Amino acid sequence: MNEFSLIEIMRSHLGPPSSHVEIGIGDDAASLKLPTKKHLLFCSDAMVEGVHFDLRLASPEDIGHKALASALSDIAAMNGSALYATISLALPSDTAPSFIDGFYRSIAALARLQKVDIVGGDLTRSPGPIFIDIACIGETSHPISRSNAKPGDWLAVSGFPGTSAAGLHALKTRSRDQIAPTLINAHLRPQPRFDLLSSLNREPDLCTSLIDISDGLSSEIHRLAKSSGVGFLLDTRKLPFRPEVLSLAAQDGIDPLQWSLGGGEDYELLATLNPASSPLPPVFTVIGRATEAREGIHLIDRHGQRLALNETGFDHFASS
Amino acid sequence: MNEFSLIEIMRSHLGPPSSHVEIGIGDDAASLKLPTKKHLLFCSDAMVEGVHFDLRLASPEDIGHKALASALSDIAAMNGSALYATISLALPSDTAPSFIDGFYRSIAALARLQKVDIVGGDLTRSPGPIFIDIACIGETSHPISRSNAKPGDWLAVSGFPGTSAAGLHALKTRSRDQIAPTLINAHLRPQPRFDLLSSLNREPDLCTSLIDISDGLSSEIHRLAKSSGVGFLLDTRKLPFRPEVLSLAAQDGIDPLQWSLGGGEDYELLATLNPASSPLPPVFTVIGRATEAREGIHLIDRHGQRLALNETGFDHFASS
Repeated sequence: MNEFSLIEIMRSHLGPPSSHVEIGIGDDAASLKLPTKKHLLFCSDAMVEGVHFDLRLASPEDIGHKALASALSDIAAMNGSALYATISLALPSDTAPSFIDGFYRSIAALARLQKVDIVGGDLTRSPGPIFIDIACIGETSHPISRSNAKPGDWLAVSGFPGTSAAGLHALKTRSRDQIAPTLINAHLRPQPRFDLLSSLNREPDLCTSLIDISDGLSSEIHRLAKSSGVGFLLDTRKLPFRPEVLSLAAQDGIDPLQWSLGGGEDYELLATLNPASSPLPPVFTVIGRATEAREGIHLIDRHGQRLALNETGFDHFASS
Repeated sequence: MNEFSLIEIMRSHLGPPSSHVEIGIGDDAASLKLPTKKHLLFCSDAMVEGVHFDLRLASPEDIGHKALASALSDIAAMNGSALYATISLALPSDTAPSFIDGFYRSIAALARLQKVDIVGGDLTRSPGPIFIDIACIGETSHPISRSNAKPGDWLAVSGFPGTSAAGLHALKTRSRDQIAPTLINAHLRPQPRFDLLSSLNREPDLCTSLIDISDGLSSEIHRLAKSSGVGFLLDTRKLPFRPEVLSLAAQDGIDPLQWSLGGGEDYELLATLNPASSPLPPVFTVIGRATEAREGIHLIDRHGQRLALNETGFDHFASS
C-alpha cells in the first residue's frame, strides 16, 4: 500500500469532486475554493509506532515534533501558510503520563513557532501501537501543485536530502554522544520549510511545481513525473551533502546516494523552476532537468553514466 | 483518558489560541474566523479496532460509514454543513483488498449523500489494529457551542437515544436474522442529523447550546453542564424509546435506561432550548431542564424519585 494505491482507491470510489475542489486527492494538500481571494489548504498525515517511529530511538518530544512538522510540510509544499491543526492520538492504556506531556509540549512549541493554532483532535486508547494523525488547514494566494512541471524546467532541491536517513543510520549504530547533532536533528527534529517560500514567489512564474521530500528523492521525482506527465534527468554529481553525512558514509562504507535517493523524511522542498527565470533562488540547488515523458526517468552517476532511476534508487544499489 | 483529560492536556500545553479561533479545543469542532461572513468548522475523529469497532460484528462498509458519520456528526453539532474530509487509515499488511474496497465504497456513498468532498488522507501500514482518523471541514453562519446553556432552558434530544447500544447488545447476543433492522442500522449505520438543523434555526435564539451524543446521554449531559456552568434535571420518564428497544430489553431483563444513559454512538443531537421560544421543534423531545450549577445534575426515575446522575448513568445500575 503506497501513496499511489491510496489515490487510485479513493479516486475510483469517490468519483469526480465538486467544483469547489481546486486540487483534490493526490497532491501534498487539497486546495479548496472559499469565498475569498485565498485558497484553503487541507491535509492529514498519519504516523504509526513501529512503522514511522521507534520509541527506542525517538523521545515523546521528538515524535510530537516530527508528526506536526510532517503535516505542516505538506502545507509548505503547496506554497501555503499553516493556520490550524487537529491532533488525533491513540495510546496504549499503560502509556506513561510523561509521554503525553512531552508529546504535546513539543507540538505546542512547534505550533507557536509556526503560528499554527491547535484547535482540536481526539485522544483514545490503542490496544496496539501508538497511532498519530494530524490534520492541518492552511491558506495560500497561489497554490503550487505537483502537476505542472514542464520539459526543460530545472529540477531543484532545498537543503541536503539524505541527512535524515544518515541520522537514522547513526542512531541505529551509535550512542548519541558519538553522533553529530546535525544528523540527529535532521532525523528527529525536521523543520517545515516555510522559510523558502518567499524565494519561490519572487517571480510569479518561477516555480512550476512543488513537492516535499517525505520519502526519498527517487520516489518524489517519480511522483512529480507521474503527476506532471514529464520525465527527469537527475545529475547525482550535483546533489549537496553535509560533511557530517559524507564522513559517516566513509566510516561505514556506505554510498551516501543511498540515503539521498532512497531515504526519506527530510521534509525539504523539491521544485521545478522555469528556466526563463533568473537568477534561480540561491537556497535551492539545481540537481537536474525535466524532460519529455518518453525520455523516462534517469540519473547520471558519479562516472557520468546514464542509468534508469527507479522509485527506490538505482540498480547500482541492488548489486552493491 | 477521556475527552476532558485531552482538553486539559492540550489547554495546559498550548496556551490561549490566536484571535482567529472563535471556538477552540473542547467543543464538537473548532470554529475559525475567515475573511467571509461564514465560520469555518474543523474537527477530527479517530476510531480504533478493538476499541470502537469489532470486525466480527461490523463489515468494512459499516466501519467506513460510521467513521465518516461520526466526524460529520461533530459538524452537525456545531450547527454546520460539512464540506470536506480527509481519511487517514492504518491497516495490517495482511488486510484483504476487499476491506479497503468496502470501506471506501461506503465512505463515498455517505459523502455523496451529504455532499462532502473527500479531498485527501493517508494510507499506511499498522503492525497492530486498524486505525481510522477522519478530519472534517464545515461551515456555518451561526456556530452553536456547548457552552451557552442557561438555567431554565429546556433540555431536548432528537431521535431515540439508546437504540445504538441496544443494537450492539443484540449483535453480541443474537444472529442477525433475529434482530430488527432498526437496531442494526442504529448501531452500524448512524446518520449525522443535518436534517434537524433547520428546525433549530427557525428562530435565532431558540437553541442555546448543542452537542451530539457520541457517548451516552449521561456523559453528554455532564459535558454540557461543565462547559456551560449549569446543572441539569433529567426526567427519565420523558425519554423516548423505540418499541424494538423496549421489546429487546424486556426479553433480556435489561433496564433500557442503561442503554440511553450509559450507551453511546447514537449521534443524535442534544440541545438546550430557550423556554421563551414556542412552539419547540417537534423533532426534539423535551427530557428535562437546565438548572443552576449549584443544584447539580440529577434525574427523576420512573418512580418519581430524584437521584444523582453520574457520568455513566445512575447508582441504580451499580446495585442492579
